Amino acid sequence: MTAQPEPEFSGDWRVFEPLQLGPILEHALEAFGENGFHGTTVRDLARRVGVTVPALYYHHENKEAVLVTLLDAAVLDLIDRVRAAVEDGGADPVARFSNAVEAIVLNMTNRAKRSGLDSELRHVSPENRRTYAATRKRLELIMLDLVRDGDEQQVFDVDDIEETVRALLGMFQSIVRWYQLDGPLTPAEVAARYRTIALRIVGHRSPA
Amino acid sequence: MTAQPEPEFSGDWRVFEPLQLGPILEHALEAFGENGFHGTTVRDLARRVGVTVPALYYHHENKEAVLVTLLDAAVLDLIDRVRAAVEDGGADPVARFSNAVEAIVLNMTNRAKRSGLDSELRHVSPENRRTYAATRKRLELIMLDLVRDGDEQQVFDVDDIEETVRALLGMFQSIVRWYQLDGPLTPAEVAARYRTIALRIVGHRSPA
Repeated sequence: MTAQPEPEFSGDWRVFEPLQLGPILEHALEAFGENGFHGTTVRDLARRVGVTVPALYYHHENKEAVLVTLLDAAVLDLIDRVRAAVEDGGADPVARFSNAVEAIVLNMTNRAKRSGLDSELRHVSPENRRTYAATRKRLELIMLDLVRDGDEQQVFDVDDIEETVRALLGMFQSIVRWYQLDGPLTPAEVAARYRTIALRIVGHRSPA
Repeated sequence: MTAQPEPEFSGDWRVFEPLQLGPILEHALEAFGENGFHGTTVRDLARRVGVTVPALYYHHENKEAVLVTLLDAAVLDLIDRVRAAVEDGGADPVARFSNAVEAIVLNMTNRAKRSGLDSELRHVSPENRRTYAATRKRLELIMLDLVRDGDEQQVFDVDDIEETVRALLGMFQSIVRWYQLDGPLTPAEVAARYRTIALRIVGHRSPA
């Protein structure tokens, strides 16, 4: 485990500035998105960046290390934003949950390409996968807490909290498969729709 | 477009017999699942099947043709099952929708590996992708009809039918990412839980 880096976002969890990843990671994100992890060679990557293969290895141990760096940054930024969003909801369990949903969906839309790397996870080593899974688990735990709180305070009505959270997160993750930033829907519009759907899933009855 | 093949399932849309794909497609399913489309070479595949590379090319034009054959068979079987499930629901819009959800979730669990190939779709040519997308669109249209029917008959209450169906299908598709047939949940148990969640999403109020 590395030390927690500075948050990528600057204060406002709803604001997504262009990513400042540096040339290697930016080109890697493009290449993995277009051709997949296995479909991208280190040679391809070096050519895209405009450096030699040894220069690339100077910065990253191997191709997997590049992917892992991207995946870790993505999930850590997401968790930071969700935490800020939840805090922003104050003491109201509905606002806290709604904000978390909004933060996740804003991430899946504004950062669709990076969030889509999640599907390349199965190509990393078991050790790296475990580390990433442990980080991602923190997101799941935040959502479990939020749904449990709402259920206990009787503003939500959920039978199976774990399955509900898994379904929610799966639904949000699937947004990256179709969302296009230059398409008809803004991230905020998508977030508003999924907020409504998510509140239904957790059995929130009153008009949201 | 090829002619519609015989249904894979034998009468009962809830029954999933072991797939009879033949050695090439069975090994390809394993290989693509383990290493991805780009991570699998024709040579790997021939070695797994125990044939020469030319023998493989005798049966399939190229590696992409193998993937496309698997993807097409998967979505056609799914659509056949969903149609049978909907018909089984008679005239009741809730039963028709619930059965469709059950059929899709039973497919995502019993056929998790094959359904997971959907994520390799981006590696096929635009032409093959369009053909597959057109077939998959039929599933979306069936779901749109079911949700619209329920909404018109006022047993469901949905604001945005298209977005709701997209969210439902994304949620179901995400099951393949975690489901394991030898894990704690049977396909029928997962189907029952997602049926409850899906009925909430479409705003079905009375106890299901």
